[in-house]
Amino acid sequence: MKKAKTIDLASRRAPASANRALSNPAAIVEADLAAAEAKLTRLLDSNESLIAEICHYLVDGGGKRLRPIFILLVYRACGGSDEKIEDAIDAAIALELIHSATLLHDDIIDAGRLRRGKPSALARYGFAPTLIAGDYMFCRAFELCGRFEEHLVRTAAQACIELTEGEVMEGRLRHSASATIADYRQVITRKTASLFYAGGKVAADLAGMPSGGIDAMSRLGLTMGLAFQMIDDLLDVLGPEEKIGKPVGSDLREGIPSLPVVLAAARNPELKQMLQNRVEMSGAAFQRALEILRDPKLIAEARAMAAAEVMIARDILRELRPSPYRDSLAAIIDEQIDREV
Amino acid sequence: MKKAKTIDLASRRAPASANRALSNPAAIVEADLAAAEAKLTRLLDSNESLIAEICHYLVDGGGKRLRPIFILLVYRACGGSDEKIEDAIDAAIALELIHSATLLHDDIIDAGRLRRGKPSALARYGFAPTLIAGDYMFCRAFELCGRFEEHLVRTAAQACIELTEGEVMEGRLRHSASATIADYRQVITRKTASLFYAGGKVAADLAGMPSGGIDAMSRLGLTMGLAFQMIDDLLDVLGPEEKIGKPVGSDLREGIPSLPVVLAAARNPELKQMLQNRVEMSGAAFQRALEILRDPKLIAEARAMAAAEVMIARDILRELRPSPYRDSLAAIIDEQIDREV
Repeated sequence: MKKAKTIDLASRRAPASANRALSNPAAIVEADLAAAEAKLTRLLDSNESLIAEICHYLVDGGGKRLRPIFILLVYRACGGSDEKIEDAIDAAIALELIHSATLLHDDIIDAGRLRRGKPSALARYGFAPTLIAGDYMFCRAFELCGRFEEHLVRTAAQACIELTEGEVMEGRLRHSASATIADYRQVITRKTASLFYAGGKVAADLAGMPSGGIDAMSRLGLTMGLAFQMIDDLLDVLGPEEKIGKPVGSDLREGIPSLPVVLAAARNPELKQMLQNRVEMSGAAFQRALEILRDPKLIAEARAMAAAEVMIARDILRELRPSPYRDSLAAIIDEQIDREV
Repeated sequence: MKKAKTIDLASRRAPASANRALSNPAAIVEADLAAAEAKLTRLLDSNESLIAEICHYLVDGGGKRLRPIFILLVYRACGGSDEKIEDAIDAAIALELIHSATLLHDDIIDAGRLRRGKPSALARYGFAPTLIAGDYMFCRAFELCGRFEEHLVRTAAQACIELTEGEVMEGRLRHSASATIADYRQVITRKTASLFYAGGKVAADLAGMPSGGIDAMSRLGLTMGLAFQMIDDLLDVLGPEEKIGKPVGSDLREGIPSLPVVLAAARNPELKQMLQNRVEMSGAAFQRALEILRDPKLIAEARAMAAAEVMIARDILRELRPSPYRDSLAAIIDEQIDREV
């Protein structure tokens, strides 16, 4: 974590094909991604049209497909062949399905009314159909994983288990004035990074990497997931609503121990007091708390933490042979720091 | 379905060991069941103690373990060896986990406050932790299935998918005055029988049966599941609350198209009218509707439908070689008709 403060974008060696990769790092796996997208769409077509409608409403509603892109890039960057690309595509779809299922269930848990700038599935379809549609997507992921070897299924299942445990841990720390950064890391490791970790691991394994390489790509997923969630937490505070697709300060309102909240509670006695007194986060109190969370020093500190993860990721990437896929992975990971959505 | 009206219990050929089997048909797989129970308990031990607590609260709360018993008996009745019993035990646990997960999610959907005579997990732990604990049990089942071959994982996953579709179909028919018996069968085939179908199929497959035998045991599961659900629907109307562990007439109150409701709506203009007018099912209206549903002719008709399934099951059982396991299966299936819990 020593080099945490800066990200030297210039040091990324750019190959000839890098211009396209820099403007859209996923372009290099465009064909694989299109195949994944087509199959994902087919899998959502349930015999019950309401299930299909809810799934499509969420999945077609503008997700970034970060998990499938990550898996496909890792697979290719590890030298994965065309021969087994179907497996990598299925893994990519399975993880996107699991992620989508958790979004539906999260909206129920948080009573989230807006997602990606539109009414959430919960707001539109009510909670029973939304809950069941989430279960349906879990089952589809499970079905898809059937073709994999036991250790790969276990990896995916364990990521899901950690995910549920992360949710409960986050619930346990809600409205806490004393959650530590270590607590925070544990929550987001389980809640967000576990799927990226599993994605990196499975993709490297399918590509035929030796165990050292599989381990490296697992760690790559972990750091990528951590950086992603840290920036997500920052965006929740910074907004604006039009970009993040939900009200600014949602985490704060719901008492979620997000990165800015945990940092501020440790450094700002006023916020700590507000949390300890369980001040209702609305009106003037909410505005004041948001102001504290937007303190430029605090934002810089949070960003530096995410940047530290990105630096670790870039170090790990050096263990791979140079390739346009590796460059795209580097670009995707770097992008996390500056993303606005 | 011709022999629907009577069940000739005497015609079951009883071997020497049958006395014990008749008083407790599961006794013959007691050791396997105990092994399944021990492993199931271990699997519920999450890193998050709240998840473990909710799972144990449900699973230790007096379930009948009908699915594990069914799977283990089918496995043994099909000649399954001790060598692969671990696989059969894992399949039994996986199906019980899936069933338990759906109970937690069902309680959320139906706002069920009582289950098995105790406050439901929802009533005790609130809906977010209950929802997540359900997801956790799905994931544990998924993890356990990792060791199976692709086609077995698919069978389990497809049962889960059907299960979610059955839930939504049931929701679609809520408060319907015109749901047909065909609709009803489709709902319970998906919602309840799909897991028994998968259980029979997987158990026979693991036992090394040829495809005809696997097909027979799938059908056995199907009929067993249908009979079980039909009697469950009757018990909801007949009670009493102390035995069924929840308020009498819950299905009626919630507008669920249960067997008595669907039969009565087709035969009794008064009930049909009540359903059409969406009469609030409480107080005198509820009592009157319950009285209609308890009409002895209607109850006999519903029971005959369940008995028809049992007859089909007994025919299927004849395809197996005689064995004490087969006798126990027959006893378990016969028991469905007269069970009071």
